[in-house]
Amino acid sequence: MRESKKYAVFGAGSWATAIVKMLCENLDEVGWYMRSVYTKEHILKEQHNPSYLSSVEFHTEQLKLSNNMNEIAEWADVLIFAIPSAFMHSELEKLTSDISKKIIVSAVKGIIPESGLLVGEHFHDIYNIPFENIAVIAGPCHAEEVALERLSYLTISCADADKAKAIAKNLSSDYIKTKISDDIIGVEYAVMLKNIYAIAAGIAHGLGYGDNFQSVLMSNSIREMKRFIKKMHKMKRNINNSAYLGDLLVTGYSVFSRNRMFGNMIGKGYTVKSAQMEMNMVAEGYYATKSAFELNKKNKKKTRLPIINAVYEVLYENKNPKKVFQKLTEKLD
Amino acid sequence: MRESKKYAVFGAGSWATAIVKMLCENLDEVGWYMRSVYTKEHILKEQHNPSYLSSVEFHTEQLKLSNNMNEIAEWADVLIFAIPSAFMHSELEKLTSDISKKIIVSAVKGIIPESGLLVGEHFHDIYNIPFENIAVIAGPCHAEEVALERLSYLTISCADADKAKAIAKNLSSDYIKTKISDDIIGVEYAVMLKNIYAIAAGIAHGLGYGDNFQSVLMSNSIREMKRFIKKMHKMKRNINNSAYLGDLLVTGYSVFSRNRMFGNMIGKGYTVKSAQMEMNMVAEGYYATKSAFELNKKNKKKTRLPIINAVYEVLYENKNPKKVFQKLTEKLD
Repeated sequence: MRESKKYAVFGAGSWATAIVKMLCENLDEVGWYMRSVYTKEHILKEQHNPSYLSSVEFHTEQLKLSNNMNEIAEWADVLIFAIPSAFMHSELEKLTSDISKKIIVSAVKGIIPESGLLVGEHFHDIYNIPFENIAVIAGPCHAEEVALERLSYLTISCADADKAKAIAKNLSSDYIKTKISDDIIGVEYAVMLKNIYAIAAGIAHGLGYGDNFQSVLMSNSIREMKRFIKKMHKMKRNINNSAYLGDLLVTGYSVFSRNRMFGNMIGKGYTVKSAQMEMNMVAEGYYATKSAFELNKKNKKKTRLPIINAVYEVLYENKNPKKVFQKLTEKLD
Repeated sequence: MRESKKYAVFGAGSWATAIVKMLCENLDEVGWYMRSVYTKEHILKEQHNPSYLSSVEFHTEQLKLSNNMNEIAEWADVLIFAIPSAFMHSELEKLTSDISKKIIVSAVKGIIPESGLLVGEHFHDIYNIPFENIAVIAGPCHAEEVALERLSYLTISCADADKAKAIAKNLSSDYIKTKISDDIIGVEYAVMLKNIYAIAAGIAHGLGYGDNFQSVLMSNSIREMKRFIKKMHKMKRNINNSAYLGDLLVTGYSVFSRNRMFGNMIGKGYTVKSAQMEMNMVAEGYYATKSAFELNKKNKKKTRLPIINAVYEVLYENKNPKKVFQKLTEKLD
């Protein structure tokens, strides 16, 4: 039986494009909202996204493209958001139609800076979406490898297992394997935190630390992530599952990761401002660092977060990365 | 106070050379046994190992070099073995002096193929060394980065914490941080198993799998390693510590890892024989695969080891890597 629910993706970056590609393997029609008129026209004319994963060809008759967010939101039953967290707030201001009955899926890799909320919490609090209608898509998955149809694994988290299964089914294909999970909060935090650790890996690399140190950093990162998530939402989870450890590794070890690249520039001596300008894009982990730091500050009994604190000091307190990381090395084991 | 115990290293590969370098930072004299007369003469004349880490300069007056294993074994109190596991058995046949009162440290990365024993067990069983006099040095540590004095972390495991501390102290320096552990058996297994997973990573890469799959493979590897070690020696351990997860990562993600390289050639279509001849060296993981597979076979209730089994089928049952890994991908998550 073909899926009767209509799916739409919001965003036109590489991850959004990859998700549209996955859905097109399974669905007759996929809704796709993007801000840019140029991008939409280009896709219609040239059958590919001009800016991201441009090797991926779409059958445009399969796509319901629009620059009107409300049009797509009203049309679809399942709304998948893949917009950088830093733009979520301003983009969502355009959303005026009632989405309280929709299923909301976050493929956003971070926290919404303005509210300090996870994307799921944000939709729950602001749009009255019940938690059983909120899902999260997590990797480990570089969009670029989806474009190449290289085998990748996704984890779909939702409190309602049937919904998780349905979404998973529509994303699965020869090259995409999926599993489901009910740890939506933990997975959302993992997705956000890994970017901070990728920045740390980049800073270390930029400062001249080698592979031996990198592996110690990752081994400490997953332990720190476990402590952080446990504090925020205690439940039984195996932190070494793909959605947590796998996603950390694919990001922390990738030379293509924007967050790692950003950290690398900082380690090499760029200021935060100049690194951001040079990259011409937002490293999600930049915002995540502040959010994670502040969330921990609010805790009565703080969690030990040496790596997040070190990245925070470098990015937000203008401290010398070399000195901060020298101190950090004493705290790792 | 200077250490009163005399330390000696057995072996002249890259890891042995790195350990001698670390000890030379702390000790007035370091014993060093090597089989090759040429290597010994070269070190005396040119102050560096001709074949491994040749950028490392030694003060030869600090070295007590010998081609006579018994001479060095009698001279030293702490005997550090850093000989490839495949040569341990034949090398140890030369050892005729009584070493039952010595402290034995294994820096061997594997199991002794002839006996199927961990190096610690081997010394305990054959040489009557009590377990509290046996220690293990574990990474994550590429010898090459020690040569460059890049910050690295070691874990020294021994049932006797004071001995672990003393050894750790003599290996520590500006660029080497150490921690101690009492999980000597678990750490020895981890050191051995990681090489199998590095072969798996290499095979996957050789077959064309990408970074997304690699991270899933590593995330499954650490869970499999945990199950294996728990079955062999149950105790409280955090598998995400550097000696387990860190060491897995530094090997599995390194393009310089001999094991990964070996796997890569297999994945690209070399036979086991031709890959070994081409590399002109032994990939420890080749023997480890057989040992791990057979150890598990002996268990009444077998542990689920999809990755080790897949590597075994490819290396020892001559099965098609592509097909074996296709089946493996179904078992991972």
